[in-house]
Amino acid sequence: MSNHAQIGVTGLAVMGRNLARNFARNGYTVAVHNRTASKTRELVEEFGDEGEFVPAETAKEFVAALERPRRLVIMVKAGEPTDAVIEEFAPLLEPGDMIIDGGNAHFADTRRRERELRGQGIHFVGTGISGGEEGALHGPSIMPGGSVESYDSLGPMLEKISAKADDGAPCVTHVGPDGAGHFVKMVHNGIEYADMQLIGEAYQLLRDVAGYSPAEIADIFRTWNQGRLDSYLIEITAEVLSHVDAETGEPFVDVVVDQAEQKGTGRWTVQIALDLGVPVSGIAEAVFARSLSGHAALREASRDLAGPKPTPLSKEEAAAFADKVEQALYASKIVSYTQGFHEIAAGSAEYDWDIDLGEIAAIWRGGCIIRAAFLDRIRAAYDARPDLPSLLSDETFAREIADAQDDWREVLVAATRQGVPAPGFSAALAYYDALRADRLPAALTQGQRDYFGAHTYRRVDKEGSFHTLWGGGREEVSA
Amino acid sequence: MSNHAQIGVTGLAVMGRNLARNFARNGYTVAVHNRTASKTRELVEEFGDEGEFVPAETAKEFVAALERPRRLVIMVKAGEPTDAVIEEFAPLLEPGDMIIDGGNAHFADTRRRERELRGQGIHFVGTGISGGEEGALHGPSIMPGGSVESYDSLGPMLEKISAKADDGAPCVTHVGPDGAGHFVKMVHNGIEYADMQLIGEAYQLLRDVAGYSPAEIADIFRTWNQGRLDSYLIEITAEVLSHVDAETGEPFVDVVVDQAEQKGTGRWTVQIALDLGVPVSGIAEAVFARSLSGHAALREASRDLAGPKPTPLSKEEAAAFADKVEQALYASKIVSYTQGFHEIAAGSAEYDWDIDLGEIAAIWRGGCIIRAAFLDRIRAAYDARPDLPSLLSDETFAREIADAQDDWREVLVAATRQGVPAPGFSAALAYYDALRADRLPAALTQGQRDYFGAHTYRRVDKEGSFHTLWGGGREEVSA
Repeated sequence: MSNHAQIGVTGLAVMGRNLARNFARNGYTVAVHNRTASKTRELVEEFGDEGEFVPAETAKEFVAALERPRRLVIMVKAGEPTDAVIEEFAPLLEPGDMIIDGGNAHFADTRRRERELRGQGIHFVGTGISGGEEGALHGPSIMPGGSVESYDSLGPMLEKISAKADDGAPCVTHVGPDGAGHFVKMVHNGIEYADMQLIGEAYQLLRDVAGYSPAEIADIFRTWNQGRLDSYLIEITAEVLSHVDAETGEPFVDVVVDQAEQKGTGRWTVQIALDLGVPVSGIAEAVFARSLSGHAALREASRDLAGPKPTPLSKEEAAAFADKVEQALYASKIVSYTQGFHEIAAGSAEYDWDIDLGEIAAIWRGGCIIRAAFLDRIRAAYDARPDLPSLLSDETFAREIADAQDDWREVLVAATRQGVPAPGFSAALAYYDALRADRLPAALTQGQRDYFGAHTYRRVDKEGSFHTLWGGGREEVSA
Repeated sequence: MSNHAQIGVTGLAVMGRNLARNFARNGYTVAVHNRTASKTRELVEEFGDEGEFVPAETAKEFVAALERPRRLVIMVKAGEPTDAVIEEFAPLLEPGDMIIDGGNAHFADTRRRERELRGQGIHFVGTGISGGEEGALHGPSIMPGGSVESYDSLGPMLEKISAKADDGAPCVTHVGPDGAGHFVKMVHNGIEYADMQLIGEAYQLLRDVAGYSPAEIADIFRTWNQGRLDSYLIEITAEVLSHVDAETGEPFVDVVVDQAEQKGTGRWTVQIALDLGVPVSGIAEAVFARSLSGHAALREASRDLAGPKPTPLSKEEAAAFADKVEQALYASKIVSYTQGFHEIAAGSAEYDWDIDLGEIAAIWRGGCIIRAAFLDRIRAAYDARPDLPSLLSDETFAREIADAQDDWREVLVAATRQGVPAPGFSAALAYYDALRADRLPAALTQGQRDYFGAHTYRRVDKEGSFHTLWGGGREEVSA
């Protein structure tokens, strides 16, 4: 066997298989390997005519099939399985070789692995890949971290297999060193949670407050998809809502159990934001909404709690309300992305990644689940002003949210009065109103903390830390 | 030196010193030790007449001063300092001895330490202590975890030095094995964050919507403190709000910088809840509100964002509004505690701690920061029905929230329309409305996930998992 494969993929479950096929279909010779060799044979049998595959039965054969420096893509489960595969392959590699981890690893694991392998001279490239099975095959959004040298070698190949934005730009960039790629992929998924939650709230309001049927709501989403909300998730929402269950003749959405799951990356986005001190309330509400939905017994026990029953609107009122919901959804979406990009900026500062936020928006424009016309405007905002304090500081977004806010508030008034939960919309509005507030009750919080714990406070009119002798004569002392 | 000290305290910063004094004042002979011996001497010089102290200069002396089985309390910083002290003392101890960690350790660290020391036959007692400096001295709320044997030995001493509830019951109980005590202390602090945030929102609404002065709001809080909100935090809120800054003559709360800090335990409460799949949105919003307040540059850049300016109410309207705010605060508080107790129940189930939730409410009635008349009602709710699905399932709380909800909603309508942030109030209401909802948009979420990721869904009308062939003829297949 000659060492002529330009890239190798080990781990041939559906994501790995499709990624290998994507490389092959783009003209690369792809070594393929799987712990269970039958999967390797199946791939070559089924898709061998799509390009040049080099099947390898053993780790040694696999490594031997790769041209040097070797590019070895690992597509296995995050966590221990990834470590196990690295332990298996690293001893077979040489300085200058690259290991690309395309799984949903926690960025802290990626930082550790990168550090360990760097000692051996191996480039570890923790890489976020978004777009699911279809994306992996036809062009995902790719978020590689790691060394500049590794990107010099890998970048052109990744650019070839990646999705392309409408302007033709490949949806991949060198995100930054070590864990930067997996960090950005994590936040992408957190934003995806928030997007889906906001869409869910819009749907619920259109259904319960406006009184529309799922089919009518599908049409509304189709209209929205022609405007500034144009995005993959809005598009498939219309598809899901217009689908009718063949067995019962009912709207599909009504036969599905309303319990969602929350997995690693959404939860991590919130946990890491807490460590970084970044408020990501919209993403947190999305994760919580999923876990709440899954607590079936608790929900069952809570059915009889008192609350208003929504009274549907007239046709004219409903149409006007739908327009307001679009404003609320768009404004809340701006806030979600503001929070997500704040988290990326904070992570970048904390770990010295020097991430280009405009580039991140740019590579999310195609391939991934949150792809949307909207992202091109985020790119433009950061391109115009790379040091933007937040997305809300961009003139265009600020003006749009200014135009939207009356309707946004009225939608929340309706939700509040009619008892329809809208945790994402309301968290977003509270964030917006808190950010722009002259004074926050945090001053009272600091006073309380000084009272019960002598935690001290600062004053608005002079430097220093102070403590009031609450138990004594209430004199103020410097702390 | 004879080994007659019944308990020893090492780490004599203010919490450790006050705890040692508390033991001594209650008649125990207390060995005291500090890395810097001068602190030990100072304690004995200053407070030696309060009881019997045995100062020890070295670790060996300290251990030798203790009667057997030894009871050794560590009062040092959580994290590495705690491990360092354990490593120093453990080799000097014998099977049956007890190490009590009174710091704010992460419960996972406590579980690890307990496991490691168990191998040596040493009981490790991770113990939450709440009440700040004053509590440590005069009677804290104490949450010890660990073995039953250790509680048999320590319990009577802890009961003596602990706070007493109004009915005379000591505010301490054997919470459960290993990390249970520190876990419960963590959630206590998370609830404390939420309580403070809700009070802050009530204050802000009374100020900005109703137009009251801080002194007037202090009076309102004093009135509330006579009713069902009777609690330490409401009491000190009135004190802080009525305090006038001597230097400027302004209300104290107006000269304090409105930036609060968020530290370990509040953040951990949310992070662990995410791991356990428990929605604690009210606590999360409280942590986020603090971190948002601290982002000074971001707030400065956001000052000009568009929004309504609140228009103060007439005197009569203001008084009526204040009554509604009391309802909103009380209802939101019920939700916070519902979420916090859900987290404790989930932790208890996950780690087999068998925590008695009614007992936890009971030991929080005195000594700690969140002490409140309210906790006696939570205790009663769990005593009446230990398997209560949630606090909201308790008849009394359900009725109270039913009575409060119209006002709660109207307060949020005012906040929403007038642009006053109320993230805690609105997260609590959204949680309440989501729990009681017949159907949640999670069904749409599951449909979307099946569409883009073949994640499958369940049906309301039959068992099994299903997938729709979205890209094909949209037939449904069993998964």
